[in-house]
Amino acid sequence: MIKVVLFGSGNLATHLFRSFKKSSNVDVVQMYARKIASLSNFDVHRTDNLELIENADVYIICVSDDAISNLSGQLKFQNKLVVHTSGSLSVEKLNNKNRKGVFYPLQSFSKNKEVNFLTVPVCVEAQNEEDLKLLKQLAGSISENVYEINSDQRKSLHLAAVFVNNFVNHMYKIGNDICSENKIPFRILDSIIKETAKKITNLAPEEAQTGPARRNDKQTIKRHLSQLKNKNQKKIYKILTKSIQKTYGRKEL
Amino acid sequence: MIKVVLFGSGNLATHLFRSFKKSSNVDVVQMYARKIASLSNFDVHRTDNLELIENADVYIICVSDDAISNLSGQLKFQNKLVVHTSGSLSVEKLNNKNRKGVFYPLQSFSKNKEVNFLTVPVCVEAQNEEDLKLLKQLAGSISENVYEINSDQRKSLHLAAVFVNNFVNHMYKIGNDICSENKIPFRILDSIIKETAKKITNLAPEEAQTGPARRNDKQTIKRHLSQLKNKNQKKIYKILTKSIQKTYGRKEL
Repeated sequence: MIKVVLFGSGNLATHLFRSFKKSSNVDVVQMYARKIASLSNFDVHRTDNLELIENADVYIICVSDDAISNLSGQLKFQNKLVVHTSGSLSVEKLNNKNRKGVFYPLQSFSKNKEVNFLTVPVCVEAQNEEDLKLLKQLAGSISENVYEINSDQRKSLHLAAVFVNNFVNHMYKIGNDICSENKIPFRILDSIIKETAKKITNLAPEEAQTGPARRNDKQTIKRHLSQLKNKNQKKIYKILTKSIQKTYGRKEL
Repeated sequence: MIKVVLFGSGNLATHLFRSFKKSSNVDVVQMYARKIASLSNFDVHRTDNLELIENADVYIICVSDDAISNLSGQLKFQNKLVVHTSGSLSVEKLNNKNRKGVFYPLQSFSKNKEVNFLTVPVCVEAQNEEDLKLLKQLAGSISENVYEINSDQRKSLHLAAVFVNNFVNHMYKIGNDICSENKIPFRILDSIIKETAKKITNLAPEEAQTGPARRNDKQTIKRHLSQLKNKNQKKIYKILTKSIQKTYGRKEL
């Protein structure tokens, strides 16, 4: 049984708590938050007092990036395994008085959306073999996809995730805007959106690329640009078309 | 039984042929291609001679956009229902000697990837009620999602699809490049890619947006920009971050 204390009460803390609860290998012995009221929905020992943190094998900090370093410095114990859960912060941001590690689940969590943690990759990092083994065990108790990823790699991974999640979602937003302006139900695009994501499981993105930019179909590109009245959308269309053309060795627009 | 002749031998013609074959309401009586050899894999009457086109209820032209107008002009019969399958061409591009229509399945088809046509939306357009009814029946025999979409709407839909398919796939490509440069298996991103697409079924893209640009986290944005050595990637990161910030009323970078 791996004993865990969770710090935080946000999306990630919530999803981790629920997933650990389902595992027979993990015991969440306590949760901490600055305001104890924010923990009222969690059926577990709760505290807002750092003096009263209970004994555990792993202390998991699930607070905002800005607050991690400070919180790890305020802990009253020493030489325990303390991990943060941030994609973009180095393990070094944790205070030196404890053994340090990272437990980073790569997913975009929304509060009211249930997540199947089994498919969420968890990236772990530690500073000695034993801690690494423990984190792998802990991650393996909730996820089928556990990766050892160092701090530099993790930063790059987080950046890659901005492209494939944040920016992709913004493409959906623009698609949605174009549909509403033309009284087309956005739902028509559901199927192609899902298929585009699914394709990538079997094909490299390079092989999966289709469309006017890929085949350098200048007539269609020109027509699309004349259709776009919104300057911002036009700019994005141009720069991405150019980038695709470059990728596949075509001449610029 | 709706009798159909298919013109073309590419991806779309192949997928349509297979789907029509499975339906008990449709009979593909013949396929035409300029080179009869390209039809050798189709178990159906084949011809490369426009003089020998058989009688049918609907003639479906699945050739490249550039060739549609010309081919429709070369047909030897009159006052039949001839449709094209292009997302970006107006129904008017078809020759006037026949009744005109559009049968546009909105999906990005790859040759060797089986497609479940049931979930592919088919957008139909015709110039009289009877033809429209027939096209809806035909579309309904292979798909659960049939929409009546006029030529202007279809052009916008095609443009929206460029954003949610072509440009999204390019985001995957950049994510993939960042991963390989840092020796990270791209597979780690599979789960977030699928989840991002799935979310959109229940949430508006505006509600689903997360990330540093959305919450105007300038520190992370700055760090990401310093990580990006590739000028093109940097430019894309900047313009999309700016666009997200604008969308949610934040100040510019």
